Amino acid sequence: MNEIYLDNSATTRAFPEVAELMSKILVSDYGNPSSMHFKGVEAEHYIKEAKARIAKTLKVEEKEILFTSCGTESDNIALIGTALANHRAGKHIITTCIEHPAILETCAFLEEQGYEITYLPVDAAGQASLSALEDAIRPDTILVSMMHTNNEIGALQPIEEAGALIKRKNPNTLFHVDAVQGYGKARIYPKKMNIDMLSVSGHKIHATKGIGFLYMKDKIKVRPILFGGGQQKGMRPGTENVAAIAGLGLAAQMVYANFDEDIERMYALRDEFVAKLRELPEVTVNGKDGRESAPHVVSASIAGIRAEVLLHALEDKGICVSSGSACASNHPQLSGTLQAIGVKRELLDSTIRFSFSVFTTKEELDVTIQALEELLPQLRRFTRR
Amino acid sequence: MNEIYLDNSATTRAFPEVAELMSKILVSDYGNPSSMHFKGVEAEHYIKEAKARIAKTLKVEEKEILFTSCGTESDNIALIGTALANHRAGKHIITTCIEHPAILETCAFLEEQGYEITYLPVDAAGQASLSALEDAIRPDTILVSMMHTNNEIGALQPIEEAGALIKRKNPNTLFHVDAVQGYGKARIYPKKMNIDMLSVSGHKIHATKGIGFLYMKDKIKVRPILFGGGQQKGMRPGTENVAAIAGLGLAAQMVYANFDEDIERMYALRDEFVAKLRELPEVTVNGKDGRESAPHVVSASIAGIRAEVLLHALEDKGICVSSGSACASNHPQLSGTLQAIGVKRELLDSTIRFSFSVFTTKEELDVTIQALEELLPQLRRFTRR
Repeated sequence: MNEIYLDNSATTRAFPEVAELMSKILVSDYGNPSSMHFKGVEAEHYIKEAKARIAKTLKVEEKEILFTSCGTESDNIALIGTALANHRAGKHIITTCIEHPAILETCAFLEEQGYEITYLPVDAAGQASLSALEDAIRPDTILVSMMHTNNEIGALQPIEEAGALIKRKNPNTLFHVDAVQGYGKARIYPKKMNIDMLSVSGHKIHATKGIGFLYMKDKIKVRPILFGGGQQKGMRPGTENVAAIAGLGLAAQMVYANFDEDIERMYALRDEFVAKLRELPEVTVNGKDGRESAPHVVSASIAGIRAEVLLHALEDKGICVSSGSACASNHPQLSGTLQAIGVKRELLDSTIRFSFSVFTTKEELDVTIQALEELLPQLRRFTRR
Repeated sequence: MNEIYLDNSATTRAFPEVAELMSKILVSDYGNPSSMHFKGVEAEHYIKEAKARIAKTLKVEEKEILFTSCGTESDNIALIGTALANHRAGKHIITTCIEHPAILETCAFLEEQGYEITYLPVDAAGQASLSALEDAIRPDTILVSMMHTNNEIGALQPIEEAGALIKRKNPNTLFHVDAVQGYGKARIYPKKMNIDMLSVSGHKIHATKGIGFLYMKDKIKVRPILFGGGQQKGMRPGTENVAAIAGLGLAAQMVYANFDEDIERMYALRDEFVAKLRELPEVTVNGKDGRESAPHVVSASIAGIRAEVLLHALEDKGICVSSGSACASNHPQLSGTLQAIGVKRELLDSTIRFSFSVFTTKEELDVTIQALEELLPQLRRFTRR
């Protein structure tokens, strides 16, 4: 049985080139970049190369890239680090109600520490209101954190407009963007978009788990949240994860190498898949269509069938999908995003996420549609009895 | 020119078996352990297997192993997490003056947050005084943090005696041990030694950089320091680094597989190397001999030669060593450990660390001694002119 992996928003297969490079570094070029001998210099070179590759995709400076252990850590540094460094200027932070738990749970921690958080509402397509943002910004607002691409429905936030608005209303407010789902699927230029910090995760773009980065605009005031041997200018101590960093740099270069072509193809696949899903009875596709959504995420609510049941029925056919957001799927709760966009209560637990990568083919999606055509009537017969 | 890598306390070469396993996971078994389909289950299985392998080496329970991104993060969770969870019980923490920066810098952060830190002195061999520890423990002492093996001179702390003493004096005081240099080189049994938390780093035992673990005794009160999607029961969110975790589990199993034999051989190499170093004129070996020191670290002060000069002269012969502690070698400061054990001021900057691994051979050490015999008179002629 062939595997059809449509859970790329949960995690992706590493590029074989990334795995090869990592292996070489692990067994041959394994030096500690802090070491003064040639093995250290060699290791440091890999880090510099990765920084250059990543900086190029964002049109930023190399020194503005901070390597972290994951998207979650990037988000935590952006939020807690900003809070630690700027609490004298204010204790007000703005975010949206459909952020990833790495933002929402960190906000909950900061609330407990005496910070005030404003959660912007979103419309039925999952987009935050710019006028609500404008109203929320105050003189004591130290940070706005807004996700680029929602992980559950692929909604895109108006990042560029938000950035301009924030800087107009309060130039001292820092703007953080969680781009864990957006980087590699959209062109993101922090300088142009007034983004001060940008979180990215390696394993969503065919690098390994356990690596990520935080773009940090030069000279912004953010404190570290881990303390140690002074690596990365003290901003993120701990021996640099050279193999994973090099792999991340290579993956970043690769996902942007044939970007327009890859993304065009992904949108074409998505459009066709969405159209076919809509031909199935009582299936609703959440969020917007075409270029107004991310190219790789399709969220569909399927009346009368529990997501978990459908997930396992698809699994039996080798098809991997996710119910709700994968990050919390081991800990089932009703999705905050789906509730926020007004998905009907009876459909909350009947929503499936299909997510693509550059490896996804038309044939795989056709097989998936066939499987759904076959399974939906069968499963509805059971569950509606 | 052959490479002779004697900087294993800075980082180690990954076992080829570890790199192979990681590659397989990266390109084939790349699921997110939170996913409910078979690729998620498969990924979760790797994590369970790694936990079982590690738990076995420590004689602890699998659920007591928390995966982190590095030794530094393990140390930060142990210190900051304990402080966050127990500040109502007290704000006093005890450590030693020769800890790694991951402990000392985190203590400095906690001091700034209103905690009081007692730094225990050490003797000329780098061992903390148990009577000083006994005197320091108070009713409001929430934590004692003591390293197992010093990274600069290989000094071993009296961990078992300290554990017993702490629990006798204040049963509520948690005992954390930074075993980044000790794990894999000594048998460490937390239950027997009254250790509540133990920090370990993957890349010191032939796994990859970017992975570590914290043994946490069941039910102790420690809060997370990162917030997110609830992975690892919320104690360390962020998608688990499956490939690196599996590699760490395998490396842990491998370093303890032929432990007695490997360590015996390493001590024999060390004893011989130390004896030959002592035959060189004006060379002092720091710390204790034989089984009273770690098997893999040799610190030698070489009168009249700057460490950096000797390091590069050895590098020209393919021999990699470290001056002082590698973790800080990019940021040259005089070593705290060497000062603490009373190394003479003029020798502080003339101290070299040789550190071994299971890959180190007698031939490599013989070549190193020959190189020193040749280089020392040459370099002294230059520097003493």
